[in-house]
Amino acid sequence: MYVILVYDIGEKRVGKMLKLCRRYLNWIQNSVFEGEITEVKLKELLSQAKKIMILEEDSVLVFKSREEKWLEKEVLGQEKNELDTFL
Amino acid sequence: MYVILVYDIGEKRVGKMLKLCRRYLNWIQNSVFEGEITEVKLKELLSQAKKIMILEEDSVLVFKSREEKWLEKEVLGQEKNELDTFL
Repeated sequence: MYVILVYDIGEKRVGKMLKLCRRYLNWIQNSVFEGEITEVKLKELLSQAKKIMILEEDSVLVFKSREEKWLEKEVLGQEKNELDTFL
Repeated sequence: MYVILVYDIGEKRVGKMLKLCRRYLNWIQNSVFEGEITEVKLKELLSQAKKIMILEEDSVLVFKSREEKWLEKEVLGQEKNELDTFL
């Protein structure tokens, strides 16, 4: 399964959330991640995210697509890339 | 076409960008928008976005899906909703 995850989270909790999400997905913009992940791993990620979040204040959105090819990505400006090969 | 748009943009330009994106899409999280849009309208939106952005600093990501049903959305915590009917 291919997912896009976006969070909007209080500054105090953002470091933890970033670290968590990077363990599972590729970081592509400040608060945006994408990648292939299994249903089980995604559940694991979200259950850990809930422990970090204050649900009344923070939010995490996940968009799931069965296949990456069903989603076309367009980037204006800067794209983060964790693979140094492109830098 | 169904799109998700996420921006990461300098504070000085964020107001303009927000206003622009809300003219075309639904605002669902601080810097995240979604909605049905035609190819032509999306081009229009992105060309106006480029005028607001500093391309060396800012970024806009657009994920496009031919059909909304190909994308499943999951929300943890707060979801913005511009339709007051759910409040």
